[in-house]
Amino acid sequence: MKLNCDMGESLGSWTMGNDAEIMPYIDMANIACGFHASDPDIMSNTVALAKQHDVSVGAHPGYADLQGFGRRSIPHTNAQITHLILYQVGALQGICRLHEVNVDYIKPHGALYNDMMKDIELFTAVIEAAKQLQLPLMVLATNNSDYLHIAQQANVTLIHEGFVDRRYTNDKQLAARSLKGAVIEDIDELNNQALSLISGNRFNSIDNVPIQIDVDTLCIHGDGSDALAFAQHLRNVIGEQAK
Amino acid sequence: MKLNCDMGESLGSWTMGNDAEIMPYIDMANIACGFHASDPDIMSNTVALAKQHDVSVGAHPGYADLQGFGRRSIPHTNAQITHLILYQVGALQGICRLHEVNVDYIKPHGALYNDMMKDIELFTAVIEAAKQLQLPLMVLATNNSDYLHIAQQANVTLIHEGFVDRRYTNDKQLAARSLKGAVIEDIDELNNQALSLISGNRFNSIDNVPIQIDVDTLCIHGDGSDALAFAQHLRNVIGEQAK
Amino acid sequence: MKLNCDMGESLGSWTMGNDAEIMPYIDMANIACGFHASDPDIMSNTVALAKQHDVSVGAHPGYADLQGFGRRSIPHTNAQITHLILYQVGALQGICRLHEVNVDYIKPHGALYNDMMKDIELFTAVIEAAKQLQLPLMVLATNNSDYLHIAQQANVTLIHEGFVDRRYTNDKQLAARSLKGAVIEDIDELNNQALSLISGNRFNSIDNVPIQIDVDTLCIHGDGSDALAFAQHLRNVIGEQAK
Amino acid sequence: MKLNCDMGESLGSWTMGNDAEIMPYIDMANIACGFHASDPDIMSNTVALAKQHDVSVGAHPGYADLQGFGRRSIPHTNAQITHLILYQVGALQGICRLHEVNVDYIKPHGALYNDMMKDIELFTAVIEAAKQLQLPLMVLATNNSDYLHIAQQANVTLIHEGFVDRRYTNDKQLAARSLKGAVIEDIDELNNQALSLISGNRFNSIDNVPIQIDVDTLCIHGDGSDALAFAQHLRNVIGEQAK
Repeated sequence: MKLNCDMGESLGSWTMGNDAEIMPYIDMANIACGFHASDPDIMSNTVALAKQHDVSVGAHPGYADLQGFGRRSIPHTNAQITHLILYQVGALQGICRLHEVNVDYIKPHGALYNDMMKDIELFTAVIEAAKQLQLPLMVLATNNSDYLHIAQQANVTLIHEGFVDRRYTNDKQLAARSLKGAVIEDIDELNNQALSLISGNRFNSIDNVPIQIDVDTLCIHGDGSDALAFAQHLRNVIGEQAK
Repeated sequence: MKLNCDMGESLGSWTMGNDAEIMPYIDMANIACGFHASDPDIMSNTVALAKQHDVSVGAHPGYADLQGFGRRSIPHTNAQITHLILYQVGALQGICRLHEVNVDYIKPHGALYNDMMKDIELFTAVIEAAKQLQLPLMVLATNNSDYLHIAQQANVTLIHEGFVDRRYTNDKQLAARSLKGAVIEDIDELNNQALSLISGNRFNSIDNVPIQIDVDTLCIHGDGSDALAFAQHLRNVIGEQAK
Repeated sequence: MKLNCDMGESLGSWTMGNDAEIMPYIDMANIACGFHASDPDIMSNTVALAKQHDVSVGAHPGYADLQGFGRRSIPHTNAQITHLILYQVGALQGICRLHEVNVDYIKPHGALYNDMMKDIELFTAVIEAAKQLQLPLMVLATNNSDYLHIAQQANVTLIHEGFVDRRYTNDKQLAARSLKGAVIEDIDELNNQALSLISGNRFNSIDNVPIQIDVDTLCIHGDGSDALAFAQHLRNVIGEQAK
Repeated sequence: MKLNCDMGESLGSWTMGNDAEIMPYIDMANIACGFHASDPDIMSNTVALAKQHDVSVGAHPGYADLQGFGRRSIPHTNAQITHLILYQVGALQGICRLHEVNVDYIKPHGALYNDMMKDIELFTAVIEAAKQLQLPLMVLATNNSDYLHIAQQANVTLIHEGFVDRRYTNDKQLAARSLKGAVIEDIDELNNQALSLISGNRFNSIDNVPIQIDVDTLCIHGDGSDALAFAQHLRNVIGEQAK
């Protein structure tokens, strides 16, 4: 079980997150590519930090929207989505040349990620970019057969991701943040959902229906005052589980 | 002798240049990468057009300055220059995956090009990017031994470029546009300088001193009402010369 | 009957439209404010051109989206919509100080205009900005009593606008551009709809139902090869009608 | 003696400074206008905060450079400088309508401020904007008679500003940050320079030459861990002095 975390979300003189503190505890760094956050200098610093801690570098492309931090859906044609991703992943690959590391996977950011999971045409456009780049794509863990089929046809590996701090609906989608209780804050409940996801056990949906989700990686958040402590804790839990 | 031309300088709904008309007559397309002009969609269209006409794709990175079209010098550290170029060239490489073509060379744009020829530290930072990307760098034709040495040490091939419509100073730099007569408009004089550059003969500097410059490629401009006619004409002249 | 037209939609080195040719034939210039098009220099030039031809200056704010030219809906809270408009109109007012003219009205651009006519909360947020600025608001001619009431409560004058080159639905909305026949290209039909709107007569909706719409101003388009001829023609028709 | 401080320098999801803590201790808030920092929403929040604490609202326009935070000089023509400032001040005035407060003065930011003090043509272009807006201009305290004359001719009031944490050269310019000792960090020295500026006494330049500078306002910095304590302290010192 791998831990992934959004990284490199600063911009020029503005700082976000605690990358240096969190990086030692994760396996995969989703590195912003300059459209919703970051700039070429911060991208280079972030890749260097990931390399230093032997963390896998992932491209984290988003909609071009600094003010909205990539959290607002902006209409694109399918071709535009493919171009948007090729551009940003390529840019990170360019930066990675300086550090002699590779981009290992793609994880779309924010609204682009959510739109991809809701709109199969948009997902297909993302897969097209991943196919051309010959890179795996990280998605919200899914057993939607249409999605699986599209990825398979394109020969794109999917990395299935789970969230420990977000409630799921009965059909294994993330419950909208606007719903009461959608974000898990209680430490025992966080622990419980984390353990269930790590061990493949059932846990309760937001409607208290038991669900089971197979995941390859858990997403953690690098901001917030408890981010570091929780990353350390999860790392320990995974270590225990692996024994 | 190759003809190169700036291409793909449109932006969203704004059009610039006559790419479709000029492309058939050039050998190398310097394709804007989104910082001073273009966007991921226009980049993709421009790469497709270049491929259709068997034109070599070059990355044309510039300062991040849409309003100034990359023609204003913006202070950067050396590391920032390297990142700026790696990002933009990588982005174009990402787009090129869709069309199964390669980026063949780098030619900095506008103020970045001029700054590189004036400032050896900035040139070194550009060379660093070219080295990491293992790509040749197009420069204003130079026999400056410091420049040649830096490129050689980094194992970066220089492509030496000449201008048919700009007067040179005695030391083979471009005369500043602000100087009277710096831009050649007379068709006979254009022809004369073109012929001299193609054949390696001497021609007059802006101060009427005979100079000789060895070049690998001639830069032509894609906008202006005579751009197409002149591109066709130069193509013919080169063809004649080659016989 | 006034003619209004979008103006000042160039950006840096990119040109759009034929402002200098069209300006003499219109009464109201909707001047872009830098978010979907234009920059402070072009705004100043456009205000100067409007002043020269005694044309009323309107602010034409849009979503912050150069690549999409303000034609893509970007989610905003109501407060954000109010700020977006206050900022852009204020900016144009700043530029207008240099030319000693006033901004006379507000007309939202593109997706912001369409969203305003579809979403009464967004309309209310626009009205809030118009109220604070004490400026009239140009809208798609409407007799929607909720819209009229909101404007009246805020003491904001509505300027009702009609389109001569777009088909209407039976309920007097613009038919979506994606619908067959939504854009009128036949010159006789253009003339007919223009005459009907000018004289207050009935004309056919896209479903061939006779409708009647009261308008204060007609919107014409400044780009396209026929824009100038059509502006001159409409100007003549209005002149004839006024006799 | 007034205290002024840069405020509203956050951007979208990125936070900078401690505006809410510092605002109660200052008299004048230099509010960023969206080109080097801020956005329409943050501008509105910052104006509201200033109003709440009865702090005078100043416009703090800068070069269009988010990545460089307005600290990099970008070449502009004089007309462009005037437009740049009119646009940004106007935008803040638009936002101020919502809060029923006025913009009381203009203080250029970062590289624009420095360029204005070094380049009399650029200063003249800034004065032109201030003149059209009928607003005072805050400058580095100067007795340069050319500068004073230009402002007087345009009927623009200058607000003379001093820095407590920066060493001055013998001719009363700020010593470049790159010089050793240019930034004062020792608390006793800060106090000493502050007291001297408040009381109009002499203090030592960076070359240990006694200089005297008349100022209307002191600039304090809102970021850094000691910002709040120092603002409170200065406020007390000014209070003591006034008795």
